[in-house]
Amino acid sequence: MNKHKALKGAVAAFASVAALGAMAAPAYAVDGTYSPNGKTVSELAKHGGAQRIASIGNEKAKNVILFLGDGMGDSEITVARDYLKGANGHFEGLDAVGQPGALGDAKAGTGQYTTFSLGNGSKDSAVGKDNNGSLAVNANPGKITPVTDSSASGSSWATGTKTYNNAVDVDVYGNPQLNLFELAKAAGKATGNVTTAEIQDATPAVLESHSTERGCYGPQGKTDGTSNDALKRCLANQLKENGGIGSISEQLLDTRADVTIGGGSKYFRQTVQGGEYQGKTVWEQAREMGFQTVENDPAAMNALQYKDNQPVLALMSDGNMPTKFNPSKATAKDPAKDANPTVCTPNADWLGNQGVSLKDMTKKALDLLGANPNGQKNGYFLQVEGASIDKQDHAGNACGQIGETDDFDQAITYALKNVDLNNTLVIVTADHAHTSQILNAQPAYALSTVLKTADGINMVVSYGTAQDDSRDEDGGYNGGDMEHTGTQLRIAASGPGAQRVTGLTDQTDNFYTIAGALGLATSTESQSALSSNAEVKVNANNGAYTAEATGFNGDAVLSYELKDKTSGKTLATSDSSTPVSGVRVKTAQSTGIALDSITEGGEYTLTVTGRQSGKTVSFDFQAPAQGSSDTKADNTEPSGTIASGKAQNGAEQNMLGKTGAALIAIALAAAIMAALAMLIKTAKAAKNER
Amino acid sequence: MNKHKALKGAVAAFASVAALGAMAAPAYAVDGTYSPNGKTVSELAKHGGAQRIASIGNEKAKNVILFLGDGMGDSEITVARDYLKGANGHFEGLDAVGQPGALGDAKAGTGQYTTFSLGNGSKDSAVGKDNNGSLAVNANPGKITPVTDSSASGSSWATGTKTYNNAVDVDVYGNPQLNLFELAKAAGKATGNVTTAEIQDATPAVLESHSTERGCYGPQGKTDGTSNDALKRCLANQLKENGGIGSISEQLLDTRADVTIGGGSKYFRQTVQGGEYQGKTVWEQAREMGFQTVENDPAAMNALQYKDNQPVLALMSDGNMPTKFNPSKATAKDPAKDANPTVCTPNADWLGNQGVSLKDMTKKALDLLGANPNGQKNGYFLQVEGASIDKQDHAGNACGQIGETDDFDQAITYALKNVDLNNTLVIVTADHAHTSQILNAQPAYALSTVLKTADGINMVVSYGTAQDDSRDEDGGYNGGDMEHTGTQLRIAASGPGAQRVTGLTDQTDNFYTIAGALGLATSTESQSALSSNAEVKVNANNGAYTAEATGFNGDAVLSYELKDKTSGKTLATSDSSTPVSGVRVKTAQSTGIALDSITEGGEYTLTVTGRQSGKTVSFDFQAPAQGSSDTKADNTEPSGTIASGKAQNGAEQNMLGKTGAALIAIALAAAIMAALAMLIKTAKAAKNER
Repeated sequence: MNKHKALKGAVAAFASVAALGAMAAPAYAVDGTYSPNGKTVSELAKHGGAQRIASIGNEKAKNVILFLGDGMGDSEITVARDYLKGANGHFEGLDAVGQPGALGDAKAGTGQYTTFSLGNGSKDSAVGKDNNGSLAVNANPGKITPVTDSSASGSSWATGTKTYNNAVDVDVYGNPQLNLFELAKAAGKATGNVTTAEIQDATPAVLESHSTERGCYGPQGKTDGTSNDALKRCLANQLKENGGIGSISEQLLDTRADVTIGGGSKYFRQTVQGGEYQGKTVWEQAREMGFQTVENDPAAMNALQYKDNQPVLALMSDGNMPTKFNPSKATAKDPAKDANPTVCTPNADWLGNQGVSLKDMTKKALDLLGANPNGQKNGYFLQVEGASIDKQDHAGNACGQIGETDDFDQAITYALKNVDLNNTLVIVTADHAHTSQILNAQPAYALSTVLKTADGINMVVSYGTAQDDSRDEDGGYNGGDMEHTGTQLRIAASGPGAQRVTGLTDQTDNFYTIAGALGLATSTESQSALSSNAEVKVNANNGAYTAEATGFNGDAVLSYELKDKTSGKTLATSDSSTPVSGVRVKTAQSTGIALDSITEGGEYTLTVTGRQSGKTVSFDFQAPAQGSSDTKADNTEPSGTIASGKAQNGAEQNMLGKTGAALIAIALAAAIMAALAMLIKTAKAAKNER
Repeated sequence: MNKHKALKGAVAAFASVAALGAMAAPAYAVDGTYSPNGKTVSELAKHGGAQRIASIGNEKAKNVILFLGDGMGDSEITVARDYLKGANGHFEGLDAVGQPGALGDAKAGTGQYTTFSLGNGSKDSAVGKDNNGSLAVNANPGKITPVTDSSASGSSWATGTKTYNNAVDVDVYGNPQLNLFELAKAAGKATGNVTTAEIQDATPAVLESHSTERGCYGPQGKTDGTSNDALKRCLANQLKENGGIGSISEQLLDTRADVTIGGGSKYFRQTVQGGEYQGKTVWEQAREMGFQTVENDPAAMNALQYKDNQPVLALMSDGNMPTKFNPSKATAKDPAKDANPTVCTPNADWLGNQGVSLKDMTKKALDLLGANPNGQKNGYFLQVEGASIDKQDHAGNACGQIGETDDFDQAITYALKNVDLNNTLVIVTADHAHTSQILNAQPAYALSTVLKTADGINMVVSYGTAQDDSRDEDGGYNGGDMEHTGTQLRIAASGPGAQRVTGLTDQTDNFYTIAGALGLATSTESQSALSSNAEVKVNANNGAYTAEATGFNGDAVLSYELKDKTSGKTLATSDSSTPVSGVRVKTAQSTGIALDSITEGGEYTLTVTGRQSGKTVSFDFQAPAQGSSDTKADNTEPSGTIASGKAQNGAEQNMLGKTGAALIAIALAAAIMAALAMLIKTAKAAKNER
C-alpha cells in the first residue's frame, strides 16, 4: 500500500465522519416505538440503524439455537410441505417452532422481517473497492439494495449492522462488526456452527470471520486448494501475507468455536502464506492450534467427544455436501410434464446414508456443547444452517430444495425433542426469499417442474428469475442462475423470549433478539466496554519477544505500534491501510504479536489498540540486558513476562474500526486529524521497516 | 332435473356418507393440539376440517374489522412498501396492525396460514357440475388444489369450510355453508361490506351469498346487464326462475347487510326473473325492500346517513373501481428499462379524487355502523377489501398494484385512528399470494417492470406466471393472465384476541378467529341450534296465503312442502334438486313463502325445513271458510295469522344441506335412503305441479 492510497482512504473516512456528525440525531427510537420512514442510507448503515423494533422485553435464555434455512422463503417452505407432507400436513420441526400451545403462549412467536441490503445494488460489488481490487475506505454508504445475498443478510443477523451484498461482518465502510460468536465467547458461552454448505460459505462465515469479500475462503481464496489463483476473491490487504487479518478459513481458527461441522474441507488444504503457520496447510495449523479435526470421515465425526480446550472442526466433504434427493430440472412448458409428474428420488451420495445428515450433525453439536463446561455453566449459541435449499433453488432444482428442507426439518425436530424449551430459545428462519413459486398450471415464461405431491396431485413449481436465458438441448437453462427475491420473510421462535419474534421487524432485529436473550453486549457502547479490561504483556523467550494481548473482547482487529522510547522512531507497526488490516483478535483468548525489532537492553514504547473499541494499551518497557539469564525484569510479573499494561479507559482512539458508534463531528474532528496523520505514518513505517 | 339425475346424485351422496362413516374418528383435535399429516380430502372438506389451531383462547371483541388485501402476499406488500416508503419505511396502517407495543403485547399478533383449496385443480371447474351445466350432488370431494382462487379462499375464511375454486360459501358437494354475516346477524350484530371491486366479486360475495359459481353476478349472470347471456356463469338450478336461491346480487338483498359499498352497479340493472320482484331490475327490488341506494354518485354516497331498517347499498362504479395509479406494463428484458425506470403516476379517473377512496368508503361504513343501534349495542363485523391489488397483479401492472396497496393502507390507517382497540379486533391479511417478485436485475424469462423507488434506486418487479405467452408488438403479453401462487400467507391483528393470530394456521382458522372473537356460533352443532326456535306462521290476506318463516338463523336455504291433509297429496313444494335450490333465507329476518295452492276451508299440512340445520316446522291448518271476514282462525295468534308452528327439536331431517356435521354412516344409512326417496318425489312434484 502506498502513501497515496492511505491518504485517500483516510480523507474519505474523515469525510464520512463529518457527514455523520452533520446529521440530526437518529430519528429512530430505541424504546419499542416504530421507526419512521425515510432514513438515509448512512443511518441505516449504522450498527442497529435498521432495527424496526428495538429490544423489547428482557426475558433471558441460557441457550439459543438458530436454525437458518438458506433461501427458505415462505414459498420454499410451502413447496416442500405440499410435496412431502401434503398441503394440510405439517413439518414436525419446522412448523412446530413458534406454534402456540394456548392463547398468549409466551414461549411461542412468529413474525416477519425485511431483508434489504445496502451497497451498489450488485451482488458482486464491494462498496469502496477500487479498480485495483483493493478496498479504499469509502465515505459513500451506497444505496438501498432491494434483494440481499446471504452474506449481507448473515452480517445483518450476526452483527446487527446492515451492509452490502458480499460483505462478511463488515459494514458498508469495510469496518468489522462484532458477531454473535465473538460476543457469546466474551460472555463465556460455548458456541457451535453447523452447515451443509462449505464452512466458508456466507452463513457460517458470518460467525467465524470478517471479510470484505465472501469468496475469500482460504489463503488462496476460493480455489481448489492447489493453485494460487491471482483473483482469489480476496481483498489483497486482508490476506495475511499483506498484513491483513486473513481468509475466512484462517479466521475460523482464530474465532475457535467449540464446535464447527460442515463442508469445504478442500480449502483447508490450502497453504498459509503469512504469520506463525506460514507454509503449512490450514489443516496443519488447525491441529497445531489444538483442534480435533475430522476430514471427510463420517465414522470419525460420530466418534468425536468433548475434550477440554480441543474444539471440534469436522469438515465432511470437499465442497458443499451432497443433497438428500437427486436433482430435478426445471424446463420450459410442456404438456408431457403434466402427464408424467416428477417424483423425487433419494440420492445415494447423500452423507445422511453414512450418518452425517444435518440431524446427525446437530445431534453431535448438541452433545458436544452439552458436555462443554462453559455450555453447562453459561449456556451456548448454536447455529444450524440448511444451506442447499438456496443452492438448489438457484439451480431450479425442485427436488433438491425439497430434500434439503426435509433434512433441515429433521434437524429441528431432533432439537425440539432434546433441548429444554424452558431455558433454550429455538429460532427458525431464513436469510432471504427465493425464486420458486407454486402454481396450478405450467407457466409460459418461466421454467417449471411438475411434481406429484404427497396428496397425489400435480403441483407446478415455477422458476422464472434467471438473468441468463441460454438453454441446453433439453430446453433447460445452462447452470443454476435463478435469483433471490426481496419479499419480507417469516421468523418463528419457541422458548424464553420467543414473543420477541413478532410483528414486522428487520433482519438486524434478529441480532438483538438472539444477543438480547443471551444477555450479550448489543449496543456499540457495551461492545466497546468489553475491551475495558484489555491487557498486554511482553514476554521474552530466549531472545524472542511477543506481546500477548488479552481481554480485547470488544474487538476483532488490533493495531500495534512499537517505538524506540528514546528516539521516538517507529520500529514496527501493524498495517492499518484498510479496516481488515492488522492483527486478528483470537476471540476471547490471548492474541500474540511477534515483536521482532527488539534488541537486548533497549527501551521501548508499545501501543496496542482495539480497532473496534478504540481501547488502547500503551506502556514503556526495557528489554533485559545482554547476557542476563533472568527475563523477569519486573518483580510483580510472572516469569517470562518483562512488562505489561492495561487499557487506558477514557482515552479511546476512535478510528476506522469503530463499531458504528454515534459519532459527533465537532468533538471528533481534532482526533480524526491526528489519527489521520498517524495512519499515514504507520503505513509508511510498515513498508519501510518490516 | 329428471329422475335419473336425482337418483345418480343421491346415490353418490349416500356413497359419500358411507365413506365418511367407515373412516376412523377425525384425527384432528379441537383442543389446540396440532393436526397430523395425511387428512383425506373428505375430512378436509368438512366444516372446520382444515383448521390447524382449533379455537384457542376465548377473548372477545365487540367489533371485528377484517381488512383483506386481495392477492396481497408478502411479496406484494414488500413491492409496495419499497416503492412508496422505501425498504426501511413502513405503512402507517398495513404494517402497524399486529405490531407489538411491548413484549407479549396481548393486543398484537402475527402469523401465517396455508391457503390451498379443494376440487379438481382447475379454477374454473365446479366439482360435480355435469355436462349440461347443472350441479349434480357429488360424492367426490375432488383433490387438493395447491393454489386457491379468491372464492374458495373467501369461502374458507367466511365459513370455515375448505372448498373448490369457483365456490362461494358452498362446500365441495355444493352445500351452502353459513358465513360470518349470517352468523353475525343471528347474534344481533351490525354488518358492513366494503370493496373496490364489483360487489359481486368473490371476496364481497362470500358475505352475501351462496353460489356454486362465482360468476353468477345477477339474474342474467356476469353480463353487462342488457343481454340474457345463455351462459350466464350460473348454475341453472340456482336461478330464481328455476326454483333456486338466486344470483349473488339478489342474495345480497336477502342477506341485507347494514352497509354495502363497492362497484358493480351494472349488474343491478339486470332484470329479476322469478319470485315477488319478477320483471323489475335488481335496483328496483333493492329500493322496494327498503334499501337506501346510491348508484355511481360520490356526493350521494358521502351524504348517506343511518336510517332505521334502511340498509345502505352504494355501488359507485359500473364495474371494478378505477385504480389509484395509472397502469405500468410488464415487458420483456430490455436494458433501456434500467436507464429509464418507471415512476408511477396518479390516475385522474380514480374515485378517490371525488371522495370515494377506500378510506372514504371505510369511514362511511364505520360512521353508519357506529350510528346503528345494533352496532352500538351488539357490535359489528366489517369487511374492507382492497380488491385490485390482485387484479393488477394479474395484469402484470406494478403501478396498479402498488397504488391499490396504498389506497388499502390509507383505509387501515383511518380505522386504526378511529376505532377503540380495546373493544375492536382489526385483522389485516390477504386471501392468496400472487405473482410479483422483487429482483435486483431484470429476469430473462419473466416479464418485468423496473421501478424507481422512494429510496431513489431501481427495483425490478418480475411477472413470470402467465400460462399464455402471446405478446403484442411492444413485447408485452396480451391481457392480464398472471396467476396466483400457493405460498403460505401473512396475517396480522391488533385488538382483543389478536394473539389468536399466530403460528402456522390454515385459512379456515381465520373464520374461527373472527367468529370466536365475536362470540358467534362456530361449530356445526351450534350453528344448527340457531334454528331451534324457528317458527312458521301462515298469514292470510284477502284470500292470498303466505308462510312467514322466522328464526331459521342456522340456515341459508329452506325447503317446504304443502300437502292436502286429507289425501296426503303434495300440492306445492320447493325445488330440492340441488343444494342451492329452494327458498333463500332472508338473513335474521322473516322469509316469506307464497302458498298459492290453498283453497278456502281446505285442511293442509305445511312442512318447512332448514336445509342446513335440518330443523323442521310442521303443522296442520285449515284455511278460513268461504265468506269468512275473520282470518283469525286461532285465538292465540295475532290478526292475519291463521296458523303457526315451531321447530320440532330432536327430529332434524339431516340431509344434503347439513353443514358438514360429523356424520355416522350406520345411523344415517336408513335416513339417507328415506331422504333419497323424498328427493326424487319432491323433484318430480316440483316439475309436475308448479
